[in-house]
Amino acid sequence: MSTNSTEPRARSRGRRGGGRAGNTRGKGEVIEQLPWSLPINTDKPTEPLTEEGIRAVHEGAMRILEEIGIEFLNPEAVEILAKAGCIVEGENVRMGRDLVMETLKGVPRTFTITPRNPERTLEIGGDRMVFGNVSSPPNCSDLDRGRRTGTRESYRDLIKLTQYFNCIHFAGGYPVEPIDIHPSIRHLDCLYDKLTLTDKVAHAYCLGKERVEDVMEMVRIACGLTHEEFEAKPRMYSNINSTSPLKHDYPMLDGAMRLARRGQPTVVTPFTLAGAMAPVTMIGAVTQSMAEGLAAIVLLQLIRPGCPTAIGTFTSNVDMRTGAPAFGTPEYMRATQMSGQMARFYGLPLRASNACAANTPDSQSAWESAFSLWAAISAQVNMVYHAAGWLEGGLCASYEKFVMDCETLQQMIVYMRPTPVNDGEIAFDAVKDVGAGGHFFGTAHTQERYETAFYKPFLSDWSNFENWEERGAVQTPERANCIWKRILEEFEAPPIDPAIDEELQAFVAKRKEEGGAPTDF
Amino acid sequence: MSTNSTEPRARSRGRRGGGRAGNTRGKGEVIEQLPWSLPINTDKPTEPLTEEGIRAVHEGAMRILEEIGIEFLNPEAVEILAKAGCIVEGENVRMGRDLVMETLKGVPRTFTITPRNPERTLEIGGDRMVFGNVSSPPNCSDLDRGRRTGTRESYRDLIKLTQYFNCIHFAGGYPVEPIDIHPSIRHLDCLYDKLTLTDKVAHAYCLGKERVEDVMEMVRIACGLTHEEFEAKPRMYSNINSTSPLKHDYPMLDGAMRLARRGQPTVVTPFTLAGAMAPVTMIGAVTQSMAEGLAAIVLLQLIRPGCPTAIGTFTSNVDMRTGAPAFGTPEYMRATQMSGQMARFYGLPLRASNACAANTPDSQSAWESAFSLWAAISAQVNMVYHAAGWLEGGLCASYEKFVMDCETLQQMIVYMRPTPVNDGEIAFDAVKDVGAGGHFFGTAHTQERYETAFYKPFLSDWSNFENWEERGAVQTPERANCIWKRILEEFEAPPIDPAIDEELQAFVAKRKEEGGAPTDF
Repeated sequence: MSTNSTEPRARSRGRRGGGRAGNTRGKGEVIEQLPWSLPINTDKPTEPLTEEGIRAVHEGAMRILEEIGIEFLNPEAVEILAKAGCIVEGENVRMGRDLVMETLKGVPRTFTITPRNPERTLEIGGDRMVFGNVSSPPNCSDLDRGRRTGTRESYRDLIKLTQYFNCIHFAGGYPVEPIDIHPSIRHLDCLYDKLTLTDKVAHAYCLGKERVEDVMEMVRIACGLTHEEFEAKPRMYSNINSTSPLKHDYPMLDGAMRLARRGQPTVVTPFTLAGAMAPVTMIGAVTQSMAEGLAAIVLLQLIRPGCPTAIGTFTSNVDMRTGAPAFGTPEYMRATQMSGQMARFYGLPLRASNACAANTPDSQSAWESAFSLWAAISAQVNMVYHAAGWLEGGLCASYEKFVMDCETLQQMIVYMRPTPVNDGEIAFDAVKDVGAGGHFFGTAHTQERYETAFYKPFLSDWSNFENWEERGAVQTPERANCIWKRILEEFEAPPIDPAIDEELQAFVAKRKEEGGAPTDF
Repeated sequence: MSTNSTEPRARSRGRRGGGRAGNTRGKGEVIEQLPWSLPINTDKPTEPLTEEGIRAVHEGAMRILEEIGIEFLNPEAVEILAKAGCIVEGENVRMGRDLVMETLKGVPRTFTITPRNPERTLEIGGDRMVFGNVSSPPNCSDLDRGRRTGTRESYRDLIKLTQYFNCIHFAGGYPVEPIDIHPSIRHLDCLYDKLTLTDKVAHAYCLGKERVEDVMEMVRIACGLTHEEFEAKPRMYSNINSTSPLKHDYPMLDGAMRLARRGQPTVVTPFTLAGAMAPVTMIGAVTQSMAEGLAAIVLLQLIRPGCPTAIGTFTSNVDMRTGAPAFGTPEYMRATQMSGQMARFYGLPLRASNACAANTPDSQSAWESAFSLWAAISAQVNMVYHAAGWLEGGLCASYEKFVMDCETLQQMIVYMRPTPVNDGEIAFDAVKDVGAGGHFFGTAHTQERYETAFYKPFLSDWSNFENWEERGAVQTPERANCIWKRILEEFEAPPIDPAIDEELQAFVAKRKEEGGAPTDF
């Protein structure tokens, strides 16, 4: 598409100025975007490992669990595992492959998560793929104000972008950490914003029991549910990381266990940087990652058999001279694909990321993110975290990158649509009608289809050089800058029952009065 | 890697200043790059079409050839096809599927092309993948001088980059059209430069018999061969395009036929933009593309059975409002993959491109090119044209984009390396030694491998934000700018026998004296 309506010069035409290209868009829509949909990825996955390779990773992971063991820094978890027959020495827990494989049989291959707006229900697993916003960076940046630490304002901005884009299916962790809210009550304000500014699936951090319980309670209130109804099916989720190598910390386990008891899903994602927290060989890092992930999934299944659980991959390589993590590398791609093979071997839904190491939304950020997306799609990943907005290995949420990533996510959603095959599509008659040297533009076959034949980007500029230059030679991040500004200007929060809003506010006020959550975690 | 040695500030340290990161590189090497290698792509291809879909495209292509026919604007070609049993009406030639399928059986599934340096021999087909430089843009650009029409100087610059980078396996068409050389003698100067500044496989344009014959003669001289030796195996190649829909022009056919007679390979690449020169449906555009491509390949096989021939795909979509071509789109990706399925069905090596529509080497250019590369790899493409340097849908060769593309090509070459599986790679013992909460950096397992464990980019900046900012917040194109300058500064042409060089010069002088080639084509 021509991006007339989003280029800087066009701003003077007024907020809804439109532009020469005459984009059609719904009322209140800044851009013409794809409708909400859950993409189905039916392509066969890319498989770097042979059957023998899969068996070797499995054998390695099982030997880690049986012979080395995993540290569970949580007495309750250790007790549950001991009762199930694991060999416990202090915090070290060794579990046999029979227990592991038997327990994994109970994990659902697919599950749903239903937020307050049931139209935003997610299906996780199988051939489904969903995308979430960037989560947890301490900093944010945009072209106007540069890089800065996160605040509630920037948090709310990025949550609004999360809500606005239909290609973002769920609201992950905080898209930026709002450091101007005291940590004891931050989760209350953040969840209030998230549950009122979006109607998409929300996430709880496992940072102490009060926070997890508060978030579950707020999601329950937002959905208008009884406690029983809340526990009847997944309404939210969490993600926990191991402290690689071979360790699960107290608060992560505590939170995941609380969620499991109430039937809410957890994604277990070891953060295994090869050469640092995991072996320098990518297959070794994947092996260790599997062992760590499976250990926690077994625990959650022992607590609530059949509880929805997914495994995450966050295996990448580092710059061996500086230790700096890298993302979207060839090694990262292969690790993601190998993790996909192992997730299917164990029958688990898989989570990955749309990651990059770049410091600015330039071409490096784009190719690293494109390679991460390629890895996710070719690995048959089900949940893509950090799908929009991530920069600097996760240390910064970029407003412009958020918009750029949504452009490529939309392209991937279209890419995953099936290719129809029928006489009209093969178009023999159209070829015959046009004949040698003719043109297809005006034919009936074209006219019937041209409105919907091709994906129309909202950010890419396909105009020729002369037109592009005449309009100011606007680079992609500048175009993205104009788009997020207009989205934020025109943002309308999704409707919420005033009684529910009031109840949420009352809960936040009460919990603030009580002092919120301890900050000595 | 940290890019200290390539950032603008480092330039003042002198040409070989190196930098804090202490990259190792060979003598005369500006960057540490991968060695020359022919990548092997063993991943299973992505297949948007079912078996039934493949049959439907085949049926459509055969019906086009049998019932509609292709125009061959070359009497000699028409005569050859008539003799083979085709139904001829004027320039329209209809050929039966029996002839097509029988003739295709003779096309070699793989072949080699051997340039003057036999170490640069290409293997085309099967699971091999080779990359060539951008070809044929009228304009070039760089950050210092902006966009301008091509000259011999810029032509030579881009040919030097083609030679420098080991990830560029062959020299395609002119990387920019040098308009300061008169068209009648342009091919002589260009080929002289190409054959002396590179030792890689060269290409001939099919633009009239004199040009094709001159290029073959110059390649023969450069390789130091008798006419018989030259014809004994492929030494160069050409690429021809159909004039879609359904037409092959005189000079393209004439040139390809001349090459076939001397055993030199041709790639036949229909340029089928869906909605313009081909049906608006992508599968319809692929069907037409196959018909056009196969028709010319049959002709070349009739002239010289078993002559190496490949089919090319250049099917993409357009902006339906402006007619502007788009590249690296979801539709482009699927068309490339479908073409891969059809090429394998017909037993033909496949050529595609690393294309984008962006006007500047920004993030849009990077994601469009990344998606084009993804398409090529997942389609099991054998030759990637325009693999480095392409901008603006092929209207501009960018010096910076050339360097950026070489970075991603290197990453793809590493991506295609097999994943080894053995006890050392699975690393159970290393995990055991490090134990819970340890670190892998200093272990023997890591130390033995860290030098070669991971791909080291020459252009990506993986430093943290603070270091990146302190060093000037250099964007990727600026880093690429520094790299191409140093490559050109330090460029050394590959050695050539002075007698051969003299013979080439004498040939060029003689042909110039004779007036070169006619310019009324």
